[in-house]
Amino acid sequence: METGGQGWMSDLSGDREIAGLFSHAALFASFARFEQALLKGLAQAHLIQPDDAAALIEQIAAFEPDPASIAEATLRDGVPAPDYVRQLRARVTGPGSDLLHHGATSQDLVDTAMIEALGKAGTILSRRLDGVIAALDTLAARDGAHTLEAVTRMQPALAFTASDRIGAWQRPLEDLRARQTRLREQNRILQFGGAVGDLKALGEAATLVAETLARTLDLRWPGHSWHTARAPMIAYATWLSELTGALGKIGQDVAMMALRGEPDIRLSGGGGSSAMPHKQNPVAAERLVTLARFNATLVAGMHQSAVHEMERSGAAWMLEWMILPQMCEAAGASLGGAAALLRSIERIGEPGGG
Amino acid sequence: METGGQGWMSDLSGDREIAGLFSHAALFASFARFEQALLKGLAQAHLIQPDDAAALIEQIAAFEPDPASIAEATLRDGVPAPDYVRQLRARVTGPGSDLLHHGATSQDLVDTAMIEALGKAGTILSRRLDGVIAALDTLAARDGAHTLEAVTRMQPALAFTASDRIGAWQRPLEDLRARQTRLREQNRILQFGGAVGDLKALGEAATLVAETLARTLDLRWPGHSWHTARAPMIAYATWLSELTGALGKIGQDVAMMALRGEPDIRLSGGGGSSAMPHKQNPVAAERLVTLARFNATLVAGMHQSAVHEMERSGAAWMLEWMILPQMCEAAGASLGGAAALLRSIERIGEPGGG
Amino acid sequence: METGGQGWMSDLSGDREIAGLFSHAALFASFARFEQALLKGLAQAHLIQPDDAAALIEQIAAFEPDPASIAEATLRDGVPAPDYVRQLRARVTGPGSDLLHHGATSQDLVDTAMIEALGKAGTILSRRLDGVIAALDTLAARDGAHTLEAVTRMQPALAFTASDRIGAWQRPLEDLRARQTRLREQNRILQFGGAVGDLKALGEAATLVAETLARTLDLRWPGHSWHTARAPMIAYATWLSELTGALGKIGQDVAMMALRGEPDIRLSGGGGSSAMPHKQNPVAAERLVTLARFNATLVAGMHQSAVHEMERSGAAWMLEWMILPQMCEAAGASLGGAAALLRSIERIGEPGGG
Amino acid sequence: METGGQGWMSDLSGDREIAGLFSHAALFASFARFEQALLKGLAQAHLIQPDDAAALIEQIAAFEPDPASIAEATLRDGVPAPDYVRQLRARVTGPGSDLLHHGATSQDLVDTAMIEALGKAGTILSRRLDGVIAALDTLAARDGAHTLEAVTRMQPALAFTASDRIGAWQRPLEDLRARQTRLREQNRILQFGGAVGDLKALGEAATLVAETLARTLDLRWPGHSWHTARAPMIAYATWLSELTGALGKIGQDVAMMALRGEPDIRLSGGGGSSAMPHKQNPVAAERLVTLARFNATLVAGMHQSAVHEMERSGAAWMLEWMILPQMCEAAGASLGGAAALLRSIERIGEPGGG
Repeated sequence: METGGQGWMSDLSGDREIAGLFSHAALFASFARFEQALLKGLAQAHLIQPDDAAALIEQIAAFEPDPASIAEATLRDGVPAPDYVRQLRARVTGPGSDLLHHGATSQDLVDTAMIEALGKAGTILSRRLDGVIAALDTLAARDGAHTLEAVTRMQPALAFTASDRIGAWQRPLEDLRARQTRLREQNRILQFGGAVGDLKALGEAATLVAETLARTLDLRWPGHSWHTARAPMIAYATWLSELTGALGKIGQDVAMMALRGEPDIRLSGGGGSSAMPHKQNPVAAERLVTLARFNATLVAGMHQSAVHEMERSGAAWMLEWMILPQMCEAAGASLGGAAALLRSIERIGEPGGG
Repeated sequence: METGGQGWMSDLSGDREIAGLFSHAALFASFARFEQALLKGLAQAHLIQPDDAAALIEQIAAFEPDPASIAEATLRDGVPAPDYVRQLRARVTGPGSDLLHHGATSQDLVDTAMIEALGKAGTILSRRLDGVIAALDTLAARDGAHTLEAVTRMQPALAFTASDRIGAWQRPLEDLRARQTRLREQNRILQFGGAVGDLKALGEAATLVAETLARTLDLRWPGHSWHTARAPMIAYATWLSELTGALGKIGQDVAMMALRGEPDIRLSGGGGSSAMPHKQNPVAAERLVTLARFNATLVAGMHQSAVHEMERSGAAWMLEWMILPQMCEAAGASLGGAAALLRSIERIGEPGGG
Repeated sequence: METGGQGWMSDLSGDREIAGLFSHAALFASFARFEQALLKGLAQAHLIQPDDAAALIEQIAAFEPDPASIAEATLRDGVPAPDYVRQLRARVTGPGSDLLHHGATSQDLVDTAMIEALGKAGTILSRRLDGVIAALDTLAARDGAHTLEAVTRMQPALAFTASDRIGAWQRPLEDLRARQTRLREQNRILQFGGAVGDLKALGEAATLVAETLARTLDLRWPGHSWHTARAPMIAYATWLSELTGALGKIGQDVAMMALRGEPDIRLSGGGGSSAMPHKQNPVAAERLVTLARFNATLVAGMHQSAVHEMERSGAAWMLEWMILPQMCEAAGASLGGAAALLRSIERIGEPGGG
Repeated sequence: METGGQGWMSDLSGDREIAGLFSHAALFASFARFEQALLKGLAQAHLIQPDDAAALIEQIAAFEPDPASIAEATLRDGVPAPDYVRQLRARVTGPGSDLLHHGATSQDLVDTAMIEALGKAGTILSRRLDGVIAALDTLAARDGAHTLEAVTRMQPALAFTASDRIGAWQRPLEDLRARQTRLREQNRILQFGGAVGDLKALGEAATLVAETLARTLDLRWPGHSWHTARAPMIAYATWLSELTGALGKIGQDVAMMALRGEPDIRLSGGGGSSAMPHKQNPVAAERLVTLARFNATLVAGMHQSAVHEMERSGAAWMLEWMILPQMCEAAGASLGGAAALLRSIERIGEPGGG
């Protein structure tokens, strides 16, 4: 099975664990949680009987949508939610079932699912980032006192220590780790606006429903919908691109150190060549550069999608779906690659130099 | 199975037929053809006995590589060719087998495979493009004489005919169709340079081997390797992006005509809404805009990869693999979407107006 | 005089006030302040006599560099600082003058100058952003209760109020305004690392010098140099692009409202046409879209420059200088254009509707 | 005077000679030529008396527009043409003067002016490109037989000759030179469509007027307007970015060779450092990389502008003006920089090696 959507080379840019967060199964599970939490909200606001809500919620838990039907409908509707809701309404029945999806719209489901997926991706990426930072700590502890030749503007400059270079790699990653914590809190927001963003269908109950819905999903209700205000998505994409950029800088440095050879660096297990068996290519290092340039390319599309027409622009919105999941995968692949690269460093610099 | 690599919304940007061209199976089949053709070239140059070459070619035809091993090795080698060649050498044996892959390098295999895949993609895309152009002919024949209000700078301007607008959609597509024919001829080039691009391992036989190899693969030998000169890849990506751009312009126009409503346009079968069942959204039109902006974003990465270090840059090269296949898929999806959109146009403009 | 660097159309994308912040004069003034503050730092650390430092500082205040020489040298050195420092050293003399620029490097001067210029740009942009937010308040106060037809996915949806749409314009701007305050504080950092980033030339006095230098320039000393960690520049560019994006969304909406005509919107003073004198084109609205897409394009280059080789990469660093100033100008032009656009709105929606 | 629009560092990315082609003066001169040629076309079609046309043409030759008025009007009209035409009509009088600009629209003037400016830029760039190609010939003649260590995937590979590397630099430039000739012919097209692109105001005389107008301007009449079909602009931008990309590859290689030091390369006159006077930085080489990444970033915006709404989109059209001139300047700067860089190469490789 190929992930990462870049065809035959998907092994290089894809990330299976991250890809799973954006699978159809994960999407439908998110939709189900939303519809269940909405019923709780409606019950809280006395718009549905608690028992009816509970019975429907139970049915939703057992509901399994037909993915083929949704895939087909997605091409027609431009979004998988309408067919999901149609199937849900056909299968989940009983008192109060006319209130399924009441007050919500497709975008509420999809944006909230995206928020949830990005949150989970953040957990995975943070854990891996902790590992990379720890590996840099280990490296600095082992080789930090070694002497290295600093290089500025593509010329040897002065001697400094391996710690100096490793520190310059590590600080941006530590900043990004701290920023992920803030970003997670900032992005932990429910999307809920109904047809045109004003929750009008819920009347005065809107806030109570929204707050309950948010709390049930372990999200925050920001006080209004944000159908057309895509800052959370851009912030996330920016973080991803900065992360792959910071790792790409490490990759570029290691590749150049490998080109300069020892005493700059000694690597184990480089990539093989089909024509020159003697070579040990710093492939893992190059890949970090590639993934950095890949996300640096893609992030522009997220900014293009900020021009979101009127109350909902399919054109702008769909662009996010094509870009964000693969940026997450690239970030995951880059962290995995960075960990492997750091493990392969046998020595940086030379003891007693300078 | 999800294609297009953009996770849950892959139905919108992926294209199964195109994706198949970039599958691992297609890649390995291309590798096999290359290795077989190379043996023919070596035989032509009397570097291997014709009978030995024939026996090895037959064995290659039956060779099935272990994809899991290649996937794993790709992460280490940064390219699937070395492990493929390693497996090939282990399994294809007999007199002359030391000449398997002789004179070639991984990049020769991969670039040639990419050229072949892009050529096949061009065939598919051209066929679909013919269909879209024909659909525009049909539309013009039916509604071309109708009156439409021209719109310039977001304001109604003067009356003109539906033919005028349809013609402005069609001409760029016809130009792109003609350019695909030229691009195909121009890009029908073998990659062959060996370890560092100079075919030195083949000595004086290099040209004869290269020409035979090219002819066997129905390609052209450009007289030298082009390991670091990526113009063919950029030209292809540019064509893809211009194609999705031209279709995106149609989509944007149709979406704006749908917003203005009749008599501009009447569409059937628009997308449904989960909140407003009365709506018929011009989803197919919006999707063309999205795919245009997607490829317009990605094409920049192809230009970034033009900065190809020294004799072979993994960093620059891998970026092409992450970008080109999905640009092809987006183009395929856009053509499919355009065909569907045009079918859904029940009427453009109004008869006897003006 | 043309600003904005986009040639004959610089009137549309340039901003004279912002451009002034990035003039050679502003740059040299920043360099002078840095060299003066550095002398204060050195004095504080007892590396130079206070009286000597004071005398040198006074001479620097009167020093006027030869810009033609610097322009020529910039092509050779890739950065204006070395020739500036050379001239400075030739003209500012006396006891202690061997300590001019002591411990610093070109990048310290240039990055700190950029930080200062961006800070001043932030002040101008914030002031204009306040004006745009206030104009939206005024608009909402006047027309907010009017009825509008909401539009989702390029189709009329349901009725809502002008306040709903205006609020969706305003909230992202308010968020961006608040973020500028945080960004300003976060980016108020001195660059100071010396030749290879470790301030080694200053020995144990490094921290004291750095802190004094920072305080004198009204900046913060982050505790280490950040020669290769470009997050502050990317954060600023991201903010600029999000700002033009949020304004571009307003522009796109107004252009579409103008296309739909009344009762959506009535505009005064639209753009004239050379061929159709009757037209009033929503030119100011279109321009906001253009500037949004312009910055959305450029921001990708800032992410590319994150791959900053070794201890200083001219290739990556120069890219920032080509991109950031014009992104600032585009943001300034967009805010000016948005203010004019809002002034030209005579009415949104219709009273008593819904 | 600063060109290049990137503020204080404009010396690095601007190009005065190219910038002149996009000055207001050049623009107005192009407008004047268009209006004069149009009168010839109208005379040819007997829509105006030849003597009247001649008298008006003479007046236009002497007409000097008020640039301040146009600059101000450009902000209102989104394009400088309407005010230019207004001034022209006020100042050029006499029999037939009601036919000034007859049948034309602003876009006809501006697009034709852009075509002319790009044609002139092509002449300049081709001439410089010839110089760079000749310099590579000279280099190959001098050092071509020297031995170099080929580098693949950031590792020393095998020995080859300096000719091999120089040839890999030169071939793409030769291809680009040949393509410029074709591009020039292909792009030598008049824009002429009138208000909504159909030349309706000229009735049956349209073709004759268009052909005469084109011939007079030494352009070709493509048989229809191309107001919304921006392929010529995208093709030009693509060529520019491929050119800076090919030069950027040379820059990257030279910078890496400089890092490896002799015998790879010996350079004279590298950039100075303010902190390390002993260094000779390969600044010119780095700048080629920067300019490559700059244009690779900008070219994406040209593809975004392909989504050109309806019969004329200010939003899409204006984006071209912000991007194309500076891409031309960057290409000019890159060619100038490449010539200087090649002059500074004292030796590549070592004689008798291998």
